[in-house]
Amino acid sequence: MTILVLNGPIINLLGSREPSVYGVESYQALCERVEQTAAALGIAAEIFQTNSEGGLIDRLHEAIGRYDAVVLNAGGYTHTSVALRDAISALPLPVVEVHLSNIYAREEFRHTSLTAPVCIGSIAGFGIDSYLLALQALKNHFTKSSKAVPV
Amino acid sequence: MTILVLNGPIINLLGSREPSVYGVESYQALCERVEQTAAALGIAAEIFQTNSEGGLIDRLHEAIGRYDAVVLNAGGYTHTSVALRDAISALPLPVVEVHLSNIYAREEFRHTSLTAPVCIGSIAGFGIDSYLLALQALKNHFTKSSKAVPV
Amino acid sequence: MTILVLNGPIINLLGSREPSVYGVESYQALCERVEQTAAALGIAAEIFQTNSEGGLIDRLHEAIGRYDAVVLNAGGYTHTSVALRDAISALPLPVVEVHLSNIYAREEFRHTSLTAPVCIGSIAGFGIDSYLLALQALKNHFTKSSKAVPV
Amino acid sequence: MTILVLNGPIINLLGSREPSVYGVESYQALCERVEQTAAALGIAAEIFQTNSEGGLIDRLHEAIGRYDAVVLNAGGYTHTSVALRDAISALPLPVVEVHLSNIYAREEFRHTSLTAPVCIGSIAGFGIDSYLLALQALKNHFTKSSKAVPV
Amino acid sequence: MTILVLNGPIINLLGSREPSVYGVESYQALCERVEQTAAALGIAAEIFQTNSEGGLIDRLHEAIGRYDAVVLNAGGYTHTSVALRDAISALPLPVVEVHLSNIYAREEFRHTSLTAPVCIGSIAGFGIDSYLLALQALKNHFTKSSKAVPV
Amino acid sequence: MTILVLNGPIINLLGSREPSVYGVESYQALCERVEQTAAALGIAAEIFQTNSEGGLIDRLHEAIGRYDAVVLNAGGYTHTSVALRDAISALPLPVVEVHLSNIYAREEFRHTSLTAPVCIGSIAGFGIDSYLLALQALKNHFTKSSKAVPV
Amino acid sequence: MTILVLNGPIINLLGSREPSVYGVESYQALCERVEQTAAALGIAAEIFQTNSEGGLIDRLHEAIGRYDAVVLNAGGYTHTSVALRDAISALPLPVVEVHLSNIYAREEFRHTSLTAPVCIGSIAGFGIDSYLLALQALKNHFTKSSKAVPV
Amino acid sequence: MTILVLNGPIINLLGSREPSVYGVESYQALCERVEQTAAALGIAAEIFQTNSEGGLIDRLHEAIGRYDAVVLNAGGYTHTSVALRDAISALPLPVVEVHLSNIYAREEFRHTSLTAPVCIGSIAGFGIDSYLLALQALKNHFTKSSKAVPV
Amino acid sequence: MTILVLNGPIINLLGSREPSVYGVESYQALCERVEQTAAALGIAAEIFQTNSEGGLIDRLHEAIGRYDAVVLNAGGYTHTSVALRDAISALPLPVVEVHLSNIYAREEFRHTSLTAPVCIGSIAGFGIDSYLLALQALKNHFTKSSKAVPV
Amino acid sequence: MTILVLNGPIINLLGSREPSVYGVESYQALCERVEQTAAALGIAAEIFQTNSEGGLIDRLHEAIGRYDAVVLNAGGYTHTSVALRDAISALPLPVVEVHLSNIYAREEFRHTSLTAPVCIGSIAGFGIDSYLLALQALKNHFTKSSKAVPV
Amino acid sequence: MTILVLNGPIINLLGSREPSVYGVESYQALCERVEQTAAALGIAAEIFQTNSEGGLIDRLHEAIGRYDAVVLNAGGYTHTSVALRDAISALPLPVVEVHLSNIYAREEFRHTSLTAPVCIGSIAGFGIDSYLLALQALKNHFTKSSKAVPV
Amino acid sequence: MTILVLNGPIINLLGSREPSVYGVESYQALCERVEQTAAALGIAAEIFQTNSEGGLIDRLHEAIGRYDAVVLNAGGYTHTSVALRDAISALPLPVVEVHLSNIYAREEFRHTSLTAPVCIGSIAGFGIDSYLLALQALKNHFTKSSKAVPV
Repeated sequence: MTILVLNGPIINLLGSREPSVYGVESYQALCERVEQTAAALGIAAEIFQTNSEGGLIDRLHEAIGRYDAVVLNAGGYTHTSVALRDAISALPLPVVEVHLSNIYAREEFRHTSLTAPVCIGSIAGFGIDSYLLALQALKNHFTKSSKAVPV
Repeated sequence: MTILVLNGPIINLLGSREPSVYGVESYQALCERVEQTAAALGIAAEIFQTNSEGGLIDRLHEAIGRYDAVVLNAGGYTHTSVALRDAISALPLPVVEVHLSNIYAREEFRHTSLTAPVCIGSIAGFGIDSYLLALQALKNHFTKSSKAVPV
Repeated sequence: MTILVLNGPIINLLGSREPSVYGVESYQALCERVEQTAAALGIAAEIFQTNSEGGLIDRLHEAIGRYDAVVLNAGGYTHTSVALRDAISALPLPVVEVHLSNIYAREEFRHTSLTAPVCIGSIAGFGIDSYLLALQALKNHFTKSSKAVPV
Repeated sequence: MTILVLNGPIINLLGSREPSVYGVESYQALCERVEQTAAALGIAAEIFQTNSEGGLIDRLHEAIGRYDAVVLNAGGYTHTSVALRDAISALPLPVVEVHLSNIYAREEFRHTSLTAPVCIGSIAGFGIDSYLLALQALKNHFTKSSKAVPV
Repeated sequence: MTILVLNGPIINLLGSREPSVYGVESYQALCERVEQTAAALGIAAEIFQTNSEGGLIDRLHEAIGRYDAVVLNAGGYTHTSVALRDAISALPLPVVEVHLSNIYAREEFRHTSLTAPVCIGSIAGFGIDSYLLALQALKNHFTKSSKAVPV
Repeated sequence: MTILVLNGPIINLLGSREPSVYGVESYQALCERVEQTAAALGIAAEIFQTNSEGGLIDRLHEAIGRYDAVVLNAGGYTHTSVALRDAISALPLPVVEVHLSNIYAREEFRHTSLTAPVCIGSIAGFGIDSYLLALQALKNHFTKSSKAVPV
Repeated sequence: MTILVLNGPIINLLGSREPSVYGVESYQALCERVEQTAAALGIAAEIFQTNSEGGLIDRLHEAIGRYDAVVLNAGGYTHTSVALRDAISALPLPVVEVHLSNIYAREEFRHTSLTAPVCIGSIAGFGIDSYLLALQALKNHFTKSSKAVPV
Repeated sequence: MTILVLNGPIINLLGSREPSVYGVESYQALCERVEQTAAALGIAAEIFQTNSEGGLIDRLHEAIGRYDAVVLNAGGYTHTSVALRDAISALPLPVVEVHLSNIYAREEFRHTSLTAPVCIGSIAGFGIDSYLLALQALKNHFTKSSKAVPV
Repeated sequence: MTILVLNGPIINLLGSREPSVYGVESYQALCERVEQTAAALGIAAEIFQTNSEGGLIDRLHEAIGRYDAVVLNAGGYTHTSVALRDAISALPLPVVEVHLSNIYAREEFRHTSLTAPVCIGSIAGFGIDSYLLALQALKNHFTKSSKAVPV
Repeated sequence: MTILVLNGPIINLLGSREPSVYGVESYQALCERVEQTAAALGIAAEIFQTNSEGGLIDRLHEAIGRYDAVVLNAGGYTHTSVALRDAISALPLPVVEVHLSNIYAREEFRHTSLTAPVCIGSIAGFGIDSYLLALQALKNHFTKSSKAVPV
Repeated sequence: MTILVLNGPIINLLGSREPSVYGVESYQALCERVEQTAAALGIAAEIFQTNSEGGLIDRLHEAIGRYDAVVLNAGGYTHTSVALRDAISALPLPVVEVHLSNIYAREEFRHTSLTAPVCIGSIAGFGIDSYLLALQALKNHFTKSSKAVPV
Repeated sequence: MTILVLNGPIINLLGSREPSVYGVESYQALCERVEQTAAALGIAAEIFQTNSEGGLIDRLHEAIGRYDAVVLNAGGYTHTSVALRDAISALPLPVVEVHLSNIYAREEFRHTSLTAPVCIGSIAGFGIDSYLLALQALKNHFTKSSKAVPV
């Protein structure tokens, strides 16, 4: 099971960017924790970051046949990109939307997600843990027997 | 560590209610899986369901001193209840909002949550797994060392 | 054939409450006329009133297996309750929405019904007769041969 | 007692038009059932259909002195016609609004009725039965003693 | 100088229709007073009334080459008809919009006029006098020397 | 019969201000034409201009007992002043709203008038003639016999 | 003179709940101060608190014949409850709306009150003093001679 | 293959009506060019124009069994007519919406089409060519082999 | 303790202005009752009225160092004046907003207050008593010991 | 005559992407059919696809002097990109907007096009034929004699 | 070259008013810095402040023939005054809008400027420097050779 | 002191693009004038242009440690890009927003800036001078003594 962890604009600034909102852990830490958790769950995770809307779409497009699922933090494009939404709809893979911060506790324009309706689910507000929970959620999604087994 | 799992209106109809939206597992199954996962995580979980907005608020009020955190699925009240929001704000405990279905893929009026801004985070769209992920999230929230330990 | 006639907040004040809007007949009269008409139609009708949103949902929930259909006047909750709407959606019984007054001739916020979309039909503006017509409508609904038989 | 049953645009296509929404009975059946029920209630009913907004207004205008009441299904004009609303306001006769389908379960723009506020009441969602219930409602409206007599 | 006085839906009910809003004078009186005033101003006035939106457009279309100007009371179509607006725009004649009642003191939906922006001016609230003032306004419009001559 | 003609902000710049919108005649010309027409109608007219919202309200307040009616061009305050609206409501005199330009053919924010609902009528788009027509309208308003007499 | 002081959701948490918004005095203190002031004014005050919307309506319903007036702090229901509004409308007693905090200085959704339009007046922002001022206001309301007597 | 080309209000004024928007070619030219192109494509085209909303609906209604498809320019009714939309929905024929002008470059209210959602496609902005392209589009629609054959 | 009682547009017309809304007592009575109550509370009150928005701001500006607090009835400016709001924000004194009428029971545009968010509290609907309650509220505000002393 | 056919995000997924919306033909087929039709019309067509908003703008920018016209399917950027709109405005070439699907029959947010107002026309809903019709439209645009020649 | 620097409501409170928003420098400092910079640029600057909307309009009106340009900080009137906008439109002089604070980082209602569309440009957020930059901008505006000369 | 001057989509088309809006000077001229002014102010300025939203964000990200401040003209992205806004928020450098044209005098959608709230200030409408003034503003921002020194 291979999962693409796709990060949008300036998520790589984690740690230095508005720490009161996004926490003090670095993007490096995010990558390491994602990899550790993935390994523990028996998942191969590849992490990719780009500031470009088109770049995110390119990467989603290329995901077909290479990954089993996607964890997506589209950053600011979450709230504005119909193109990204279309790319997710076109993707025959489950996508989980994640956010580091609790986007519902922030500006009004962050309360609307154009991409969430075409993802299978979304997780927001737990910092780096949002990613780890998404890996777990996708693991459960694929192991039908998840019902009987505690996470 | 003790967690209150608080369910709002007609969540107890799970399994018989609109299975294409909410899945075929019963409320009984939900309770069992929550308890199993909680036990595996070393958490004592108490589950409570009521159709009453005031009843949810009563229970939140009484949670002070009895629980360490709350997992809340407020059902239809999520989108309309200022009173419930105020009750969460008044609660000196972390609350995680969960939804069985992907509320963003449904009617427009389900895209607005009055309660999410005063929760620490929210998880939606994973069926019963939304609850299990929330337990994990709260576990991580309290074990500061969660960074180094895969979920 | 057994029908639950479910009344929401302060409908039991009928007669004393804003008579220019709701008419001068008492709630007692409403109950008697509903029972008389039901009897004439060969229907067993049970009437229940509560001021509580959760109470209405409880009662709808319990209706499964006990009633064949519901006549619902949810009063003020009509315009605000997603929880009630969900309870109706979850109910495998036909529900007819009724209103004593012509809600479209009143304040703007009474023109939107959250519950009507999940009922089979709605009747408004005929005072107590709204209930009697709803009983007739449900009678017709179940007697497929209603086409050939004048009401 | 004489009642005008006034039908707006393409209601005469009933049966062939979107049967999943409007049912399979033909406009011919609608006319016959209205006439049967009217006869059973001791009402003389005249049915008229036109696709023209101005034609509906003409007919309403001419109704003064010729009919005691009107049953109106204005179709698409329900949601857009101030002119029709004015014609109803100007009419010293009770008008009952009817709809074959449950307009509240359809597109957003069908949830607003410009004509309902100036009718005495409205009935929607019962197919042809909506008309039959409206005849009964008007019968009750004129027989003040309707209180004591089951419909 | 020949002027078309064009009346829309149910304006011919004047006197019998909502007298508290529209006054007690009859449509007959309106016609006579328009003719008297026109005669006094040296204008030939032709009055036409129709309940049909298309009929109003037909008549505007035919006005080219037959009239010098139009006084238009489009009634309820004022607030809803893009087609009528287009017909006025296409007309190489000055049009004055008139209303019997003060439309700004009535329902919200009467505060918007789709036709006023393509008329040369509008007069509302003076009952039948609105028409007489419009005749005067058009008279002034054509007699460039109106500046020096009191109306 | 004495009428106050009350002009709001920068109407005194007439002639020099945006002539394509307001025409080339000067404010001086406006005053003279108003006086000539008033004289011809047997009306004593007093003209007053101020740029101040409070000044307009002061003048309306003082109008009680000194004038029989008011012609008001409140300029930009028309669209924004609740205070001016209240002052007109409090005035036991008929007020006619006038505008030089066709405000409905201009920016969206000029399509809403806060003052028109509490005036007896409004006249817009005829340049200085709007004032002259308003004088005539008020003359008619007071001479009940205006019906029989051409304007 | 007997007054019901009716408190809605979580007002009983006063003192422990968001002290920067609601102050540090306890609900116990609120009750004592209300009773002291009532006594000083010669009023018998009964205080009741419930988290339930239906419970507030029940209590209002039962108030008829038992109290002369009501002081109502409906908390979060203020902004969302049509049912509560209807219950106040149906009540033949004066109701004064009170709020501890200045609701206009808080979130947008707290700026709209569904209940204020059917109360006689409202007082917000003075902490517990809002209640005391409401008692005084009702005292004045019943003592017609309040004009001549300083409060 | 027979196609109805249905034109709404004042499209017959083409050439004389706002030439900067609609071009200088006459309605006569429109008819001739439609007929020439239809002939070249092996299509029998019938052109009909009416200013009446009801007339357009009548004609659509009668189209069943007489035409294979419809090219519709509903003019101003495009933006306001639910009745027309319903008539198209009820029609078991493909309809192509056309506009002479680029409606998206004009007033805001022309950007919304009530009819486009129930047509198979729409073409706007090419003057008379919009009609010719629509004929081609319908030709392609019926010749399944259009894929391999250049238009 | 010295308090400025600042009245906005046409509040001086009290008694003669819309008595069904504002009551029959005169502005003179308002002034006397304010002075009596102030005296009884040991407050020196100065009352000022102006119709001018700028005048209200001037007076607020000058209040610094001369008064301890302000009671403000800004009339129509309440709903429209950002400038007045800024003037209150800039004032290092507590301001209480008062209204004679229950502004929430009136037109929609009176339900929004631009000034209330920057006042300490607001009182509406009690006629002249609104002022007297505001004096009491400010007295309490300054006497910290108000808790123990009945008003 | 050389035309740039510019395709936005994920249009290259055609055939595999939501076939019920976009059809089963592949992007390869789209390219071939565009080239065939262009050749038949005597047009040199160059096709370019990119997922990047900036890439579309780059390509439009470079089009000056290299192409005579552009056929643009901007995909999801159609509804959100002011930057793209500006790039079209800045381009001294005619642009035709095309869409494979009938965007007006889909989600609300697809009904608004930021780019259509600055194109010369738009064609939507005909699948790959939308492109072929656009080529024809541009051919006509440049051959002024198109009037006399059937397409 | 002579420039009017026109300041609206409470800008003269600078330094004492909300220093976290507006800075600690006094109005006196503003005046001195404006004068110094003007002198350095060879401009005669006159500074005027008023709290009155009408006063600002008066001063703009009188500016014709006396000044070459205006720097305007209309304070709170920026967001609400159509009258002020009209006064600027009527002024045959360039006006530059300035704001001390970054109005876009403050309340929603400060994001809309009614006056900016009729100014030549606007500068916000630089404290007193906003004025100095505006002087420079106007200097450049008049010295056509500004291109070649660094500011 | 080193400043990045960052230009968004198609700003490099300056001179050829809509000269009535953006002026006739070329992008080359813009670069030269920025460099001249920067030199005169003792600033090292680097100019960069890209059509790509992601490219702008990349460049902002890389600015940390390389520049002291940024002058940003984000073109069309100003009004739509949450991602760009986030990138500015994350940047520990002052950013000044500039626009060549007066964006408030153009289409409605240009009146909203998502980026202005997170810049220190904004300058719009002065053509190339907007950039030069921004350089000056940043110079002042860093030289604390700017108060005493004319710009």
